[in-house]
Amino acid sequence: MAGNKAVTYIGPGKVEVHSIDYPGLVLKDGPGVHPANVGRECEHGVILKVVSTNICGSDQHMVRGRTTAPAGLVLGHEITGEVVEVGRDVEFIKVGDLCSVPFNIACGRCRMCKEGHTGVCLNVNPDRPGSAYGYVDMGGWVGGQAEYVMVPYADWNLLKFPDRDQALEKILDLTMLSDIFPTGYHGAVTAGVTSGSTVYVAGAGPVGLAAAHSAQFLGASVVIVGDMNEARLAQARSFGCETVDLTKDASLAEQIEQILGVPEVDAAVDAVGFEARGHGTGAQEAPATVLNSIMEITRAAGRLGIPGLYVTGDPGAVDDAARVGSLSIRIGLGWAKSQSFTTGQCPVMRYHRGLMNAILSDRVRIAEAVNATVIPLDDAPRAYAEFDSGVARKFVIDPHGMVPA
Amino acid sequence: MAGNKAVTYIGPGKVEVHSIDYPGLVLKDGPGVHPANVGRECEHGVILKVVSTNICGSDQHMVRGRTTAPAGLVLGHEITGEVVEVGRDVEFIKVGDLCSVPFNIACGRCRMCKEGHTGVCLNVNPDRPGSAYGYVDMGGWVGGQAEYVMVPYADWNLLKFPDRDQALEKILDLTMLSDIFPTGYHGAVTAGVTSGSTVYVAGAGPVGLAAAHSAQFLGASVVIVGDMNEARLAQARSFGCETVDLTKDASLAEQIEQILGVPEVDAAVDAVGFEARGHGTGAQEAPATVLNSIMEITRAAGRLGIPGLYVTGDPGAVDDAARVGSLSIRIGLGWAKSQSFTTGQCPVMRYHRGLMNAILSDRVRIAEAVNATVIPLDDAPRAYAEFDSGVARKFVIDPHGMVPA
Amino acid sequence: MAGNKAVTYIGPGKVEVHSIDYPGLVLKDGPGVHPANVGRECEHGVILKVVSTNICGSDQHMVRGRTTAPAGLVLGHEITGEVVEVGRDVEFIKVGDLCSVPFNIACGRCRMCKEGHTGVCLNVNPDRPGSAYGYVDMGGWVGGQAEYVMVPYADWNLLKFPDRDQALEKILDLTMLSDIFPTGYHGAVTAGVTSGSTVYVAGAGPVGLAAAHSAQFLGASVVIVGDMNEARLAQARSFGCETVDLTKDASLAEQIEQILGVPEVDAAVDAVGFEARGHGTGAQEAPATVLNSIMEITRAAGRLGIPGLYVTGDPGAVDDAARVGSLSIRIGLGWAKSQSFTTGQCPVMRYHRGLMNAILSDRVRIAEAVNATVIPLDDAPRAYAEFDSGVARKFVIDPHGMVPA
Amino acid sequence: MAGNKAVTYIGPGKVEVHSIDYPGLVLKDGPGVHPANVGRECEHGVILKVVSTNICGSDQHMVRGRTTAPAGLVLGHEITGEVVEVGRDVEFIKVGDLCSVPFNIACGRCRMCKEGHTGVCLNVNPDRPGSAYGYVDMGGWVGGQAEYVMVPYADWNLLKFPDRDQALEKILDLTMLSDIFPTGYHGAVTAGVTSGSTVYVAGAGPVGLAAAHSAQFLGASVVIVGDMNEARLAQARSFGCETVDLTKDASLAEQIEQILGVPEVDAAVDAVGFEARGHGTGAQEAPATVLNSIMEITRAAGRLGIPGLYVTGDPGAVDDAARVGSLSIRIGLGWAKSQSFTTGQCPVMRYHRGLMNAILSDRVRIAEAVNATVIPLDDAPRAYAEFDSGVARKFVIDPHGMVPA
Repeated sequence: MAGNKAVTYIGPGKVEVHSIDYPGLVLKDGPGVHPANVGRECEHGVILKVVSTNICGSDQHMVRGRTTAPAGLVLGHEITGEVVEVGRDVEFIKVGDLCSVPFNIACGRCRMCKEGHTGVCLNVNPDRPGSAYGYVDMGGWVGGQAEYVMVPYADWNLLKFPDRDQALEKILDLTMLSDIFPTGYHGAVTAGVTSGSTVYVAGAGPVGLAAAHSAQFLGASVVIVGDMNEARLAQARSFGCETVDLTKDASLAEQIEQILGVPEVDAAVDAVGFEARGHGTGAQEAPATVLNSIMEITRAAGRLGIPGLYVTGDPGAVDDAARVGSLSIRIGLGWAKSQSFTTGQCPVMRYHRGLMNAILSDRVRIAEAVNATVIPLDDAPRAYAEFDSGVARKFVIDPHGMVPA
Repeated sequence: MAGNKAVTYIGPGKVEVHSIDYPGLVLKDGPGVHPANVGRECEHGVILKVVSTNICGSDQHMVRGRTTAPAGLVLGHEITGEVVEVGRDVEFIKVGDLCSVPFNIACGRCRMCKEGHTGVCLNVNPDRPGSAYGYVDMGGWVGGQAEYVMVPYADWNLLKFPDRDQALEKILDLTMLSDIFPTGYHGAVTAGVTSGSTVYVAGAGPVGLAAAHSAQFLGASVVIVGDMNEARLAQARSFGCETVDLTKDASLAEQIEQILGVPEVDAAVDAVGFEARGHGTGAQEAPATVLNSIMEITRAAGRLGIPGLYVTGDPGAVDDAARVGSLSIRIGLGWAKSQSFTTGQCPVMRYHRGLMNAILSDRVRIAEAVNATVIPLDDAPRAYAEFDSGVARKFVIDPHGMVPA
Repeated sequence: MAGNKAVTYIGPGKVEVHSIDYPGLVLKDGPGVHPANVGRECEHGVILKVVSTNICGSDQHMVRGRTTAPAGLVLGHEITGEVVEVGRDVEFIKVGDLCSVPFNIACGRCRMCKEGHTGVCLNVNPDRPGSAYGYVDMGGWVGGQAEYVMVPYADWNLLKFPDRDQALEKILDLTMLSDIFPTGYHGAVTAGVTSGSTVYVAGAGPVGLAAAHSAQFLGASVVIVGDMNEARLAQARSFGCETVDLTKDASLAEQIEQILGVPEVDAAVDAVGFEARGHGTGAQEAPATVLNSIMEITRAAGRLGIPGLYVTGDPGAVDDAARVGSLSIRIGLGWAKSQSFTTGQCPVMRYHRGLMNAILSDRVRIAEAVNATVIPLDDAPRAYAEFDSGVARKFVIDPHGMVPA
Repeated sequence: MAGNKAVTYIGPGKVEVHSIDYPGLVLKDGPGVHPANVGRECEHGVILKVVSTNICGSDQHMVRGRTTAPAGLVLGHEITGEVVEVGRDVEFIKVGDLCSVPFNIACGRCRMCKEGHTGVCLNVNPDRPGSAYGYVDMGGWVGGQAEYVMVPYADWNLLKFPDRDQALEKILDLTMLSDIFPTGYHGAVTAGVTSGSTVYVAGAGPVGLAAAHSAQFLGASVVIVGDMNEARLAQARSFGCETVDLTKDASLAEQIEQILGVPEVDAAVDAVGFEARGHGTGAQEAPATVLNSIMEITRAAGRLGIPGLYVTGDPGAVDDAARVGSLSIRIGLGWAKSQSFTTGQCPVMRYHRGLMNAILSDRVRIAEAVNATVIPLDDAPRAYAEFDSGVARKFVIDPHGMVPA
């Protein structure tokens, strides 16, 4: 049996690569594993040899110590891999298949799954609807920033790439199907982006860039990305977005008006979430600032897509209300404009097949848009630190050296 | 020319019936009329002899002094009437037609109207998208709690009843088409209510009761209405709703669990808005309490319909944030549950024809559900006071004695 | 091990009750079983003790000899039952659960299932997308007009009733969830029926009656049912429908105009299919007559829901074209009216949970609407004959005497 | 007052440029004008100086003598122009505005218009819902292949370009907004084309090419266009489509399989209509052949968009049934695959604003895709003949020499 190295959370600001158990078709006890999940049989699951696995901005919330993640938690929910073992109840996925894994674990058998809401599956997390690999309070499924990982309900969850060679050639794009490409796309779709829309995307991190590229793909006439990080804004401009520098003193509305001639857009995406900072020089953390600003600059009857993460508990929050996820939101403004709001995890399965086809036919260039950067597994700790410093990169871990140069 | 008596706002807690000008096909200066609207020609409009016009909970916000409504403002946006004069540009509506007037004034010529968002028409209110008769900051269109009123863009706005005699016979139901029936229905529709849904409606005022009856009509299996006013809860029970008394110490979730066996519903409607009070005995005004509670008791992937009014400015608010319409909302909770939220004025035109047909074929009994109570115009001041005291009635003003006994 | 009696197709006009094998968790060879399905392992399946199983109009197509069904085919795709054995891959369904079985067999693992199109599952029928129990050319899954039946992919397919005693009490309603209630509802939904619609349903057989009752439940203001069978029309009138007798010389449009005042409805459902007959006295089989007539009497921009079965091969058809399923359709008329058309098997899973809740809360009375009539298994041959004669009954077979009197 | 030259239908195969009356804000008697429309006042209308007006494939149906169009009918329903006179009831459109005119004339005041079905407006054509300029049986609104034309209900119908200079620069693209770009887009949208779809477009005439380019814009991974005209297929390849030559002996399904690896697409558009010809060498007119073939090559649960024209009467049809618009359609095949079908005129207003924005931001190149070819008004007769011969061109008439070189 092979060994298994994995990226492990040690404590605030600290991740290390440790050796962990090779996965089996059962969920064993370990850091963060919910007691009700210990011993759970997974003959519907497969073992994947991980071909690529990405570092996500939501991993950073844990690594920064903004959650109750336990030491020893194996990280990683953006997983692409090759099937090396299948459970006896797996019928359609075969050994050798190269597959994308949706970050949301779903059973394919509950009401939510049947209705397409795989982000809030009822059967995988004893604490609440919805789960993910390698994430705090998500039931304890072992993360995939590793050499090998177990994926349950494989016939339901996995998206098989039609051709192995073609897939490996485009692996840097396809690796984004497990999370940020669908997540950004979901933000744009739920914001109502369609042919000819003007769009504002708050945040130029990987999800924001994915939302911006998705908005382009959905036919937006103009996509404007706002951030306070010039390197990330430059990245947004590299694929045709307009940008707004939020460190400037001109308001967001004013900067949008300079671009569009009007201070409003048709649709807006919040790709920042609860760690938002205020606008202008010297801005502090202001968790509702993105939500409030996008209500202001979205037109009447517009929709707000909110893939950016808001949490129910935040030990590091700026005030008591924020510590329980309660933010001061200008709901009166949104109401006056008849806006609507869509929140929550992206149900990846709703989108990943279509986006895969778009990648395979060269209709989108998501790897370029987010500046995919390949690293070996052992470099993960350094990459976490660099990512946290705000570099305009999306780090893709290549545990087995399978990603073509 | 006839005279014209009208219900007029005098100051906090005070409305009186005054004589005002008989309307013409032009918008004249007066209390609350936006300067840019003064002198506006309305050859697309008609003069209506008001057959019935209802007192609305949103009128109360003004009468309680929670807005900047000027003294002398003529109230009333729930209007049903007979056409007595048509402008030269009116082509399809004829003198003698009996019609329902959507409370939202819309031009039928702007992008929002073309897309069905008549609640945020761009051409009727110089201040912001969206307008209404007899309402503060809505452009200054004279209210319809009067004997006569002018309705602009009549071919677009008016819904003609197919048969005059039949319409007069059902006028107490049809009078609800101008606002609360579509508004309640919109709340239920945008909450995703469909065949078999379990539904919670916050608030047993007329909009809440209309939302509850709409939810039944949309096929809900169980409709639960919550309020702190026992008379209104009894009214909800009178047409088959379950109720939750929010003055009790058991939590909303606990009371729902007692009814359904689970502490969650599929869909929830906020029919309260910013003047919400807290839960339990001795509750104080707590403007976000309804929003936060319905996030808690709505299931994952559920939707919240929010027809209850939230404002951008509230001089009488409990704190500085609320004074500018900013409330402490548990967005983290909604996000964790992948909920979505629809706010704003109901675009009445989207629904009024279908609901009219439902009334005319005896499929719904909205007048009974909201306890429609006919009064003469001169009794309007008394009815405002009674309504404010919390009676379980929907007051319908009958200025010309045309409502059959 | 128990024995297993089952309703078996012998030849045109002839069905008999035979003893067949007790089912196992594998698909064995037999009449109509596709070679590629022989030996298929079904550890994802369960064995059901059949509580109720209905005779369907589409069974009649086979029994009348209008298909290539082989002698010995066990009939029955409308199944409700109690789980008596579960396969090792079944995780959430338990022995003792009382469940409704969607007539469309679906894997819950293919693209179609993931997108909610369970009527055209890609993995259950080697010949084409879509399958059903006990039906010709559907892969060979053994029918359920029997004492026991195997249901594959049980966690995905089965709808568990929440309470056994309550379910048995309402079993005559719940038994309609396996096919005709969702099928009629799908017809109404895809015809665009909504609050206040006027609706025409072609055909007063069980699916037509279910469509009519569904249209009422969906809020239709008027539901008109047309047929040439007076007993069935009387059944439609028994629950509030208007009716049109197609044996009369007045045209369908004229009769509709007499009811509505206009010769058109908002929405129409074809609940007849390819065995349609012409209109007026002495009408012959005219397979496109229903489609053409509903195009005529549906308004511009209206939608046609077509749950009535059209086939790709019909040995008994009136002409060569019809023998391969090609009918002379007035597409020019539909095009001029901008109509749209939805065909195909109802994806039962999309609707059965909501309709179950509507039944359990007494919002619908589907058993009464279709005149559910309980018979023992041995009476099935007689019931087939009676049903074929046009009685206004929906026969429910009760193999174990479990249906309460 | 200016004169007014216009393209006039003389008889089968013959069009000429004649002098006609300068338009006024009233509908006067003339060839094809419905008696009920004679004398209709149009103070809601404007007079346009025509900047560009295109020859449409549907004009050819008339010119080929396949309709009952009367001699003297002024042709042209694809109109872009500058407002030179406004009726007294026009409020928002101003003299000097450069505007696109939807080919469907709509009142903006009837139920259909309010619901967005402007292709079947109830108030503009006394014969049936729906109308168009310069078209047989459409009420008699004078065509726009002329120097000047009257457009009724101008505030509702017209789409104003935001900047005159920018608009003139892109006029060859913008001129396609009046019909074929939205029509092709509507075909693709109603076929369900979305990110990653595989799409087949039947017909490489201008509407087919517009549908193909729209499908690309909507995110299709592969767009395949089929025709029997090699020049038009080459045009489709010029902007990235795959093509199928229907004169070849390989079946459509076989040729699709050669391209995609499977013989089916996700979505199909019929951009041919009733003048379709059979497949293979020596094919004759076979009016249902396109419909039947796209049912065959579209996957289960797929949708068919049918913007291609089917008529209710065709004097030149191949048989009696086709003469009244009845075609032999393999509905059994479509039903077995659970397909749905959308027919009818494109409601241009639903799409033109978004597509305009896409043009103005260089997201689409519709003029290139359809090979827009500018001609002076006097060359229209020659262009009709060339177009009828099957050249791969879309002719744009430039009556005033305003189109930049």
